[in-house]
Amino acid sequence: MRLAELGEAGLLARLTRALPGGSGVICGPGDDAAVLDLGGPEAVLFTTDTLVEEVHFSRAYISFRDLGYKSLAVSLSDIAAMGGRPTHAVVSLAVPAGIAVADIEELYAGLDEAAGGHGVSLVGGDTVRHPYGIVITVALLGLAERGRVLYRGGAAPGDLFCVTGDLGASAAGLFLFQNPGLGCPPEVERRLKAAHRRPKPRVAAGHILAASDAVTAAEDVSDGLAASLAHVCAASGVGCRLRAELLPICAEVLALGRLTGKDPLEWVLSGGEDYELLYAVRPAAAGEVEGRLVAAGETVTWIGEALEPGAGLWIEHADGTRRPLVPAGYDAFRVNGV
Amino acid sequence: MRLAELGEAGLLARLTRALPGGSGVICGPGDDAAVLDLGGPEAVLFTTDTLVEEVHFSRAYISFRDLGYKSLAVSLSDIAAMGGRPTHAVVSLAVPAGIAVADIEELYAGLDEAAGGHGVSLVGGDTVRHPYGIVITVALLGLAERGRVLYRGGAAPGDLFCVTGDLGASAAGLFLFQNPGLGCPPEVERRLKAAHRRPKPRVAAGHILAASDAVTAAEDVSDGLAASLAHVCAASGVGCRLRAELLPICAEVLALGRLTGKDPLEWVLSGGEDYELLYAVRPAAAGEVEGRLVAAGETVTWIGEALEPGAGLWIEHADGTRRPLVPAGYDAFRVNGV
Repeated sequence: MRLAELGEAGLLARLTRALPGGSGVICGPGDDAAVLDLGGPEAVLFTTDTLVEEVHFSRAYISFRDLGYKSLAVSLSDIAAMGGRPTHAVVSLAVPAGIAVADIEELYAGLDEAAGGHGVSLVGGDTVRHPYGIVITVALLGLAERGRVLYRGGAAPGDLFCVTGDLGASAAGLFLFQNPGLGCPPEVERRLKAAHRRPKPRVAAGHILAASDAVTAAEDVSDGLAASLAHVCAASGVGCRLRAELLPICAEVLALGRLTGKDPLEWVLSGGEDYELLYAVRPAAAGEVEGRLVAAGETVTWIGEALEPGAGLWIEHADGTRRPLVPAGYDAFRVNGV
Repeated sequence: MRLAELGEAGLLARLTRALPGGSGVICGPGDDAAVLDLGGPEAVLFTTDTLVEEVHFSRAYISFRDLGYKSLAVSLSDIAAMGGRPTHAVVSLAVPAGIAVADIEELYAGLDEAAGGHGVSLVGGDTVRHPYGIVITVALLGLAERGRVLYRGGAAPGDLFCVTGDLGASAAGLFLFQNPGLGCPPEVERRLKAAHRRPKPRVAAGHILAASDAVTAAEDVSDGLAASLAHVCAASGVGCRLRAELLPICAEVLALGRLTGKDPLEWVLSGGEDYELLYAVRPAAAGEVEGRLVAAGETVTWIGEALEPGAGLWIEHADGTRRPLVPAGYDAFRVNGV
């Protein structure tokens, strides 16, 4: 069997089967970050992400500085989704020998910018030659209060699903990069492209969520909302009803939808790279959690609720019609992937 | 300026200039691993290494299982050189979509083998598509007793330089892979190729070295002995005299040298990937440290001594002649690199 047939989720399921649950492992593979006990008072979070040229980014539409920023931001988002605070990173960079040193310095300037904005120290790495293109891998550590780590697997039937910020802008921005000359209003174009190049990891929001006993599950929306909901529901053993009319679709995404005739819902459900936080919360405490997030400058939207096990995953429209929610988000090995 | 002109060391010097020394950082970039304070009783070690297809390995002469093993072994060697014990790893794997799942499973089996042999848990990772070839990045954590971490920078004039094991086999093995049909005796070929495919990280030896107050510096011999000595001498601010006649050159390397007319010393000084430990030790305690290593099944060889600052780096031959020791080891960006 080829990887393109199995897909990333299938591959990970096969590979993680055999992984030993060794000493000091509070949570191994399968969540946004591993959770470790290294002997200190806090739990240690450990995550890694790789960006590959012409798979995750193109130099045609991202600057070296933005690329550096984004390559750390995607890992910061994983730590945010676990409710931790990021602390230390190492960066592994594979680049063609012909690349200009000034470009690499810009990339590191972007990394420094993302690191400095979140109190992260870049403590090392590896820099190697690649014959064709750029591959950046960031490994990031974080700390979280023991017993206050956010996992994907704690949602119960009746819990409300909420999401921070608004959705769809990064995928719509990528669409604009790949389809120039659409006559999109400059302010719409600017907002959408910026969302794609400079995602904002919700570290402060994750911290607020982790502080509440009523928040039962969380994940960052990195591969589209449908995929994130599917992960949380699978890990929690619940179904879900997503209410289409409640979704916080970015206004500029709606504008681009009107301009192009594309369905904005697709960018929200399947687009990915929003890096907002999806979370489940007990209904009685949902307002209080929302209040704390809003007081910290975040926006929050209730988008649906968890159903009984076996009830399936559904998206319901305002007129009462519903269809199965199919996670069609980014798959690393789909041949026609992003 | 292009990277190929600046080289890896020059690049790292430029990039690490600006790195912030943040909270919890005991030692940042520039040693085999970063050393962190994450609040626990022990120091946390953090390192990463990347292997790129057609730069660091070729599928023509390494199996997927050996590749998995080696990709963790090179990071294990970094933790060994700091005197730590490796604990947890994440693996980031970029592969072409057309690759067979069975090959990836073999690669993970090799990773598991290296991990299991050293008590390391593989706790997560990222698996992504690459348009052309394979890139594997391992990020590895370790723990070490505070105050007992081995650094490159502590050697003083008069300290003895020693090395574990024997040298040159991995580079000679690579030479054999790249030059088939030399008529090399099978047992020589087997030993040299195995050394290249399955390096043995000296974790137990590193632990023994770290336990002694008399061991003043250490580094793994990953880029050739000349480069490792140059790193330790630069970090320690000392010169060195390396005694050519004392070097523990692997017997099979000598045999290949006789067969091909190549100078075995080149494989030792510039070849790289031996993953033995180079260390500096106060003369009065050298015998005691050696005794402990030998009791643990390691071999140790005294190869030279540290000189006064400014005395330079020299290799001295049995007849008393000497020449400057030029670190011509692997550079990630040399256009004619390995």
